[in-house]
Amino acid sequence: MGIVVVGSIAFDTVQTPFGMSERCLGGAANYFSMAAKFFNRVSIVGVVGEDFPKNHLDYLNSQNVDVSGIEIQKGRSFYWQGEYGRDLSNAKTIKTELNVFEYFRPTLLPHIRDLSTVFLANIDPSVQIHVISQMNKPKVSALDTMNYWIEKKHDELIKVISMVDILFINDLEIRQLCNEQNVIKACRAVLKMGVKIVVVKRGEYGALLYFDGNFFFLPAYPIDNVLDPTGAGDAFAGGFLGYLSTKDKVDIHVLKDAIIYGTIMSSFVIERFSFNRLLEITKQDISSRRAELLKMIEHSI
Amino acid sequence: MGIVVVGSIAFDTVQTPFGMSERCLGGAANYFSMAAKFFNRVSIVGVVGEDFPKNHLDYLNSQNVDVSGIEIQKGRSFYWQGEYGRDLSNAKTIKTELNVFEYFRPTLLPHIRDLSTVFLANIDPSVQIHVISQMNKPKVSALDTMNYWIEKKHDELIKVISMVDILFINDLEIRQLCNEQNVIKACRAVLKMGVKIVVVKRGEYGALLYFDGNFFFLPAYPIDNVLDPTGAGDAFAGGFLGYLSTKDKVDIHVLKDAIIYGTIMSSFVIERFSFNRLLEITKQDISSRRAELLKMIEHSI
Repeated sequence: MGIVVVGSIAFDTVQTPFGMSERCLGGAANYFSMAAKFFNRVSIVGVVGEDFPKNHLDYLNSQNVDVSGIEIQKGRSFYWQGEYGRDLSNAKTIKTELNVFEYFRPTLLPHIRDLSTVFLANIDPSVQIHVISQMNKPKVSALDTMNYWIEKKHDELIKVISMVDILFINDLEIRQLCNEQNVIKACRAVLKMGVKIVVVKRGEYGALLYFDGNFFFLPAYPIDNVLDPTGAGDAFAGGFLGYLSTKDKVDIHVLKDAIIYGTIMSSFVIERFSFNRLLEITKQDISSRRAELLKMIEHSI
Repeated sequence: MGIVVVGSIAFDTVQTPFGMSERCLGGAANYFSMAAKFFNRVSIVGVVGEDFPKNHLDYLNSQNVDVSGIEIQKGRSFYWQGEYGRDLSNAKTIKTELNVFEYFRPTLLPHIRDLSTVFLANIDPSVQIHVISQMNKPKVSALDTMNYWIEKKHDELIKVISMVDILFINDLEIRQLCNEQNVIKACRAVLKMGVKIVVVKRGEYGALLYFDGNFFFLPAYPIDNVLDPTGAGDAFAGGFLGYLSTKDKVDIHVLKDAIIYGTIMSSFVIERFSFNRLLEITKQDISSRRAELLKMIEHSI
């Protein structure tokens, strides 16, 4: 059974110390599906304006991505402009134009409601609630969020966290969400909010997973030419949930593999602007990099 | 064959959000030897003032630590006062009184020159050169440093780096030393300076090792009640070199174990002020925590 992702489809203008990419394709749903498609069929729920290139939708379609849930509305697509400093760790937003995304409140198509895995990308928690409420008992549900929603829509966010299985969140955000500097304590606090699994994304330091009383730590795959970190978190979720969606059960062993695939997919995406690198790679590239990463982390090999 | 550590023996006053410890025992040589003594005999080379408690020297002696290389000079011992903010990541120095440490330029005792492993703790690189030059072909030599020496004694530091096998350095320092933001690239640059092995300490994110073209990444053991991070780096080096000094050869497998023991020793020291936690633990505690950490990092278990 397939995956549904609900999130932004956008044009991004990104400036990093290594270059600039103007009005390239972006948005969480794009990054997620471009990573997850290597593992399973993905349905996108989103909205674009009339300015969105039809050939990208055709491309997604050719790649086993279901675009029937993407509405094309009058007006312009979501636009984001951001800039990264030398450490590439956090983007400074220069401009956000919500455009057609402003009133995005999707009604899911019947075939999408029945999908077994759902990813609520980083959008307004009230929209996340609206979407998850329409799903017919998905096997696995996950959400991502950001500091803006932690501050502005705290109650809605807490509510939707209690409605899903997995929370993807970064270092700074989990500290803010739990008002707790120690990430280990914060993970325990998040589980009390009702999720079963928390995945803390730590950028160049990797990721950690907390599930059923077990921590699993995975360093990032080392990339010495990071061009643009945009989309790394969504590509991570794409690899993670893409892999997970192909498994019958969720246990610590499956989750360890999921976090490895998430890490690998995010390591590719940051090597080029936009999701260009994901257009080039093959399943073989994913397997090779996975083997390399295991060699760098396993004590016993 | 044993280990020699050259470094500070001090009184520290440390303030963290969780409390304060006034004029407690500290200094790199103390932290290092309190960790390394679990693995091998350690000889300390250092200097203290008349105010230093003789019972601590007696305690070290009772713990298989050779204190014959500690000079007792007229005057007061080295004193450091520092403060940590909420994130516990970097200490702000409030006061440093070098006292008897100011003109520290030790002449090594004959039995110490023949030891097989040497650790040059974070001191003036010109003193590090003076010490390493007196050693009779140690099997393994290592040094630690800090931002102050990178700025103030750059040439001497580059020289001593070329004289040792292993560089212990933290994230910020390696970036500064190599003028390179990307830590992976910086590791490669450091190897061109003449060391064989670089160990990058990343605090709560763990450590990474670069040797012979191989990276090995180890997350930190999760501690949810960090009281005082002082000495974590020196306890890390103590566990690392303590273990390494017991091995006949240095290969990637031995180094992976060394970094694990370094990580474990630093995880203990931060649980209490000063090195009080190291007074309590046993070899069994070290083994148990090592097994726990392996479970948290190994993909295959």
